[in-house]
Amino acid sequence: METAQALRAIIRKGEFAAPTAGRAPGYVQTNLVILDRQFAFEFLLFCLKNPKPLPLIGVSEPGDFSARAIANVADVRTDVPLYRFYEEGTLSGETDDIQHAFNDDSVAFYLGCSFTFETALEQAGIEVRHITEGVNVPMFRTSIDCEPVGPFAGPLVVSMRPIAAERIAEAVAITGKFPLAHGEPVHIGDPAAIGILDISSPDYGDAVTIKEGEIPVFWACGVTSQAALKAAALPQVITHAPGHMFVTDVRDRELEGQHAFLDR
Amino acid sequence: METAQALRAIIRKGEFAAPTAGRAPGYVQTNLVILDRQFAFEFLLFCLKNPKPLPLIGVSEPGDFSARAIANVADVRTDVPLYRFYEEGTLSGETDDIQHAFNDDSVAFYLGCSFTFETALEQAGIEVRHITEGVNVPMFRTSIDCEPVGPFAGPLVVSMRPIAAERIAEAVAITGKFPLAHGEPVHIGDPAAIGILDISSPDYGDAVTIKEGEIPVFWACGVTSQAALKAAALPQVITHAPGHMFVTDVRDRELEGQHAFLDR
Repeated sequence: METAQALRAIIRKGEFAAPTAGRAPGYVQTNLVILDRQFAFEFLLFCLKNPKPLPLIGVSEPGDFSARAIANVADVRTDVPLYRFYEEGTLSGETDDIQHAFNDDSVAFYLGCSFTFETALEQAGIEVRHITEGVNVPMFRTSIDCEPVGPFAGPLVVSMRPIAAERIAEAVAITGKFPLAHGEPVHIGDPAAIGILDISSPDYGDAVTIKEGEIPVFWACGVTSQAALKAAALPQVITHAPGHMFVTDVRDRELEGQHAFLDR
Repeated sequence: METAQALRAIIRKGEFAAPTAGRAPGYVQTNLVILDRQFAFEFLLFCLKNPKPLPLIGVSEPGDFSARAIANVADVRTDVPLYRFYEEGTLSGETDDIQHAFNDDSVAFYLGCSFTFETALEQAGIEVRHITEGVNVPMFRTSIDCEPVGPFAGPLVVSMRPIAAERIAEAVAITGKFPLAHGEPVHIGDPAAIGILDISSPDYGDAVTIKEGEIPVFWACGVTSQAALKAAALPQVITHAPGHMFVTDVRDRELEGQHAFLDR
């Protein structure tokens, strides 16, 4: 099986530039947010106050591109297949190398993603519809506000997976084991109650089939950070491009029951 | 029974200026650290990377003196019986009111303290020796280094309580329920292994009797932050004076099993 370290090495060499889903199976993949130290306290506190959409798996000190707490022989400036630049909240470019842009004041945040719990759902025989249908997970802006901190504010964004009614309790239990991968659902069954008016028209990603006997189940989603970063309109923010994650050396199973990975 | 809110009100009026141990029983008391926003990110990360000595119960946004996440009708500038000022790491004064010193860039950190678990030990019939003997808990600098972040570094400081050998497992279980009040012990039984050469000569607080059949048990201690703040030698830091804690509206029992109280 491909290791995370081997995958990072080929990404670093420029030999892999695609989405990371399904690669280095068993290893935790993370969202990436890089911003200037002057905004780092408030963004860190924003993550801590909104742990379901923004679970902290790692945070680097200013200027540290090694990700050493969660990955050996890593360089966050080169080890993500595709990065995005945002200026004043607006997408300004994409690149596969940010060595020129990462400086002594750059702070990297590594945030949990749903791949970990989707693997666990599939291993339990619970179908993950968007994977079956080969599309992106459907995501929706909700009427639930994040707890704001400084310039960071915005709606909770959720991902939706249709689950057979008789397996929902199991899906709750399985995903609840992984607080650092969004944990248990934030809502089950009534889209309108959280401000979702048309379940067939997601705000991000793609619509999926909801079959007879299935209920829409909603989990907090890392895209919440993008809405908040857009609202904050900082001079510059760097993130991974959607689906092009940072792959850590942490094993999925090590996340079970963990609330903080920083002291690893 | 005295409520936390009532106790804060009389402290605010200047009618109570003593240590808070035993007051407003059942309510969580916290250590207090106030520093400038320019150091807040690294101090917050230092706490997150050293959660046993520095468990975060609350963090305020810059300039917010309300402690609103953990206390109603509170003002952290007046609601602690005695404060200490440190300049460049050196104690420079004490006061009972910091309204003149708290500004728009001041960030307040509220860190768990051992009162919560000492109450739980006593309720289980496990004697807490320094309480019985009416002295301060004995505290020791250890040979264990904290995980450093930026200017913040230093040894883990521990508190010691002698426990009858046959009750140690129970004491571990009880204190382990309260991760936000230092949690289970960091060491049991061999002071020399953590760099403590003379158990009768604590670095802070007072020595206590260790009886036949008792083993010294060591818990992470909030004084760890004082050693780190001294090393960092920031231009100005404000803390509570030892024993003069900030009293929150959070109930001791609410801390059970909690890893983070920020989203309350």
